[in-house]
Amino acid sequence: MLRLTRLYSMTIPKDKLKYIPTNGTYPKGFKVGSVSCQVKKNGNPDLSLIYSSYNCNAAGVFTTNKFKAAPVIIDRDNLQSKLNQNFNSIIINSGCANAVTGNGGLNDAREIINYTDKKLGNNVESISNTLTMSTGVIGQRLQMDKIKNGIDQIVTQLDSNHEHWLNCAKGIMTTDTFPKLISKSFQYNNITYNIAGLVKGAGMICPNMATLLGLIITDAPIEHQTLQNLLTNSVNKSFNCISVDGDMSTNDTILSLSNGQSGGEIITENGNLELYELFEKNYNELAIELAKLVVRDGEGATKFITINIKNAKNDLEAQKAANSISNSALVKTAMFGKDANWGRILCAIGYSNIEVNPSTTNVSFIPTDGSKELKLLVNGEPQIVDETRASEILELPDLQIDIDLGLPGDGQCQFWTCDLSHDYVTINGDYRS
Amino acid sequence: MLRLTRLYSMTIPKDKLKYIPTNGTYPKGFKVGSVSCQVKKNGNPDLSLIYSSYNCNAAGVFTTNKFKAAPVIIDRDNLQSKLNQNFNSIIINSGCANAVTGNGGLNDAREIINYTDKKLGNNVESISNTLTMSTGVIGQRLQMDKIKNGIDQIVTQLDSNHEHWLNCAKGIMTTDTFPKLISKSFQYNNITYNIAGLVKGAGMICPNMATLLGLIITDAPIEHQTLQNLLTNSVNKSFNCISVDGDMSTNDTILSLSNGQSGGEIITENGNLELYELFEKNYNELAIELAKLVVRDGEGATKFITINIKNAKNDLEAQKAANSISNSALVKTAMFGKDANWGRILCAIGYSNIEVNPSTTNVSFIPTDGSKELKLLVNGEPQIVDETRASEILELPDLQIDIDLGLPGDGQCQFWTCDLSHDYVTINGDYRS
Repeated sequence: MLRLTRLYSMTIPKDKLKYIPTNGTYPKGFKVGSVSCQVKKNGNPDLSLIYSSYNCNAAGVFTTNKFKAAPVIIDRDNLQSKLNQNFNSIIINSGCANAVTGNGGLNDAREIINYTDKKLGNNVESISNTLTMSTGVIGQRLQMDKIKNGIDQIVTQLDSNHEHWLNCAKGIMTTDTFPKLISKSFQYNNITYNIAGLVKGAGMICPNMATLLGLIITDAPIEHQTLQNLLTNSVNKSFNCISVDGDMSTNDTILSLSNGQSGGEIITENGNLELYELFEKNYNELAIELAKLVVRDGEGATKFITINIKNAKNDLEAQKAANSISNSALVKTAMFGKDANWGRILCAIGYSNIEVNPSTTNVSFIPTDGSKELKLLVNGEPQIVDETRASEILELPDLQIDIDLGLPGDGQCQFWTCDLSHDYVTINGDYRS
Repeated sequence: MLRLTRLYSMTIPKDKLKYIPTNGTYPKGFKVGSVSCQVKKNGNPDLSLIYSSYNCNAAGVFTTNKFKAAPVIIDRDNLQSKLNQNFNSIIINSGCANAVTGNGGLNDAREIINYTDKKLGNNVESISNTLTMSTGVIGQRLQMDKIKNGIDQIVTQLDSNHEHWLNCAKGIMTTDTFPKLISKSFQYNNITYNIAGLVKGAGMICPNMATLLGLIITDAPIEHQTLQNLLTNSVNKSFNCISVDGDMSTNDTILSLSNGQSGGEIITENGNLELYELFEKNYNELAIELAKLVVRDGEGATKFITINIKNAKNDLEAQKAANSISNSALVKTAMFGKDANWGRILCAIGYSNIEVNPSTTNVSFIPTDGSKELKLLVNGEPQIVDETRASEILELPDLQIDIDLGLPGDGQCQFWTCDLSHDYVTINGDYRS
């Protein structure tokens, strides 16, 4: 493991080393890499490129923030214009978000993708084969000279090995304390399908760091509309089910590429259902694992909290309740303080604007060491809580909170969040300096 | 001023002494007081009573949280049943919120008002003349013996002087660092009208402390439906325009009483408009001053921030934008860190789900020492910001942020909030112990 920490100039916290893979199997036909353009003042890698020698189908899910960064606008338009087809690369810079930069910023983003096309020798008809993402401080223009120098270098240094994929994940980091990379393979009819995922985002969804960026890359031959639907649905169960601080960025983007180099039949929602569902399962699992890594690295977080809601009116209402709990500063500080203050959980449900029946509501802490559930509220009646037992449960770094709303409708949601600590305040009180 | 700090066993922070009045003129015909029932472990006053020897019209605005505390349910029902008429007292306990306490809690709240009626010698027909409020830890039953002993004492100790009003404000405090009391008088046609306001709420709107409680008491003869409309409208421009942490309590309640002892004509929306508008102006001003005191005492707050939104699509959208900025952990920590990170402000507007046009949006810091405005964003174009100047402005304890959305519609809102500090995390990580 020591080798890994030396790989980066940044010191990775010891308790995070276990989340960094030491090897992986990656989608065939892709080469990746990262370089330092010196946009980041500390000299860490700040430009990453993912390139397929074969044309890819592509999909994207973007922030709904009304102030959209330039790369968000460009990617969304290009995906639409080319009907999610005929892309082969994604170029990502970190350190500057190219957000709220007006027309100049849009031109910069266009120049980046065109310059990348040129350097990759892409055969472009009218619209670029390259997608782009930016993350970092907003309201500042990109230092285009540095970025272009970086592109000149990066195209000469691409490779498909584990080290390159890990460095690629490193190149998209901002306040993240560790690179977030997951790879996954599965077989069907003697064909091996590979998926790789990269993500960045420490203060979830926040303007300056322009979190969250995510990439899901596969060699499976996914039909283009199916890829878009897969991505949209899996984001809804993964990246839309996590929260660090509730802020939503100008740059949030998840992109997906598939180049078909695994071979095998085309995967579509309307074709071989067994294959489709197997692929969907693996794709969704990977998206959820990536999302959980973001929470694991939540700014200043000391606790990883899983919230299970069941028997809500419907799934959407379950998600609203979980989101409200996850964003409550009072719940999050109580968890940081290891205080079994379940009233705050209940209260956050109460103002989430969903249907509740106080007398059918149940709240429990589920210890993550496998010991017995601690019931806090049963059918609206507060239980006499053994505070010593509660403290033991809250001493564990991971916590699960189960909420049964007891309504007909079977709505459910699993959601992940972290606590709110002194360090969150320190990190975010002083981000730009 | 020293006298005041000695009045309470709690030490009041020196910088808060200026918010505590040393005298006041109070509504005629009301007597008030507070005692310690020992529900609060520190022995501070925890039971307050406001009593009018004359029947009052009454109005209430209550939390919209789905988990409503027992006193909220009882008051709302009783106000409705008696058409906002024929009340004469409000009994408030602090230290225990009587929330999520099931039917037992509802019975406790009923017993409190009935017992108060009896001790005051109220001539009750079927529904109590007393309203009630509770604030404190939730999920615990009231210690009724202590409360009843307290009621026995308090009815013998009522008075109408300044000290008693101030102690009454003290008796409703939980994590507040100072009692919040404002009185106001004005004249019309040789008649003097008096209004007094009391409020508690430090972690704004939060489940355990069951913030916010507010009381607006007047001797003006306000017609009962007019009083309810006045209260509803003024809450919308005051208590609904503040935020400390965005959580909304199970107990939030604002009550208003008017006993007509000023004399003069009945004040109604359909009567003497000049008098009505004068009264409305004074009533609204008092509500806004009370609301601002809550922000001044925001848990751990080091900054008082005024947010002005103008040229939104409509007033509601302006309020949504202001609320979103006020609740952003990223904006609040940046303000604590004195970081002129305007991107976070913009971003919070961007996800507030209102209509915006990036290219007509303007953001400025308005220094509260009267010096020149600092433009951060002009028609969507980031300005070159003098960071030294920005730091000077952010060193001031008060900050004003002006946002012009540049849309037709003339929607506007003034909103007040505070920063998010290390101390907020400390206070709320460990509230119950």
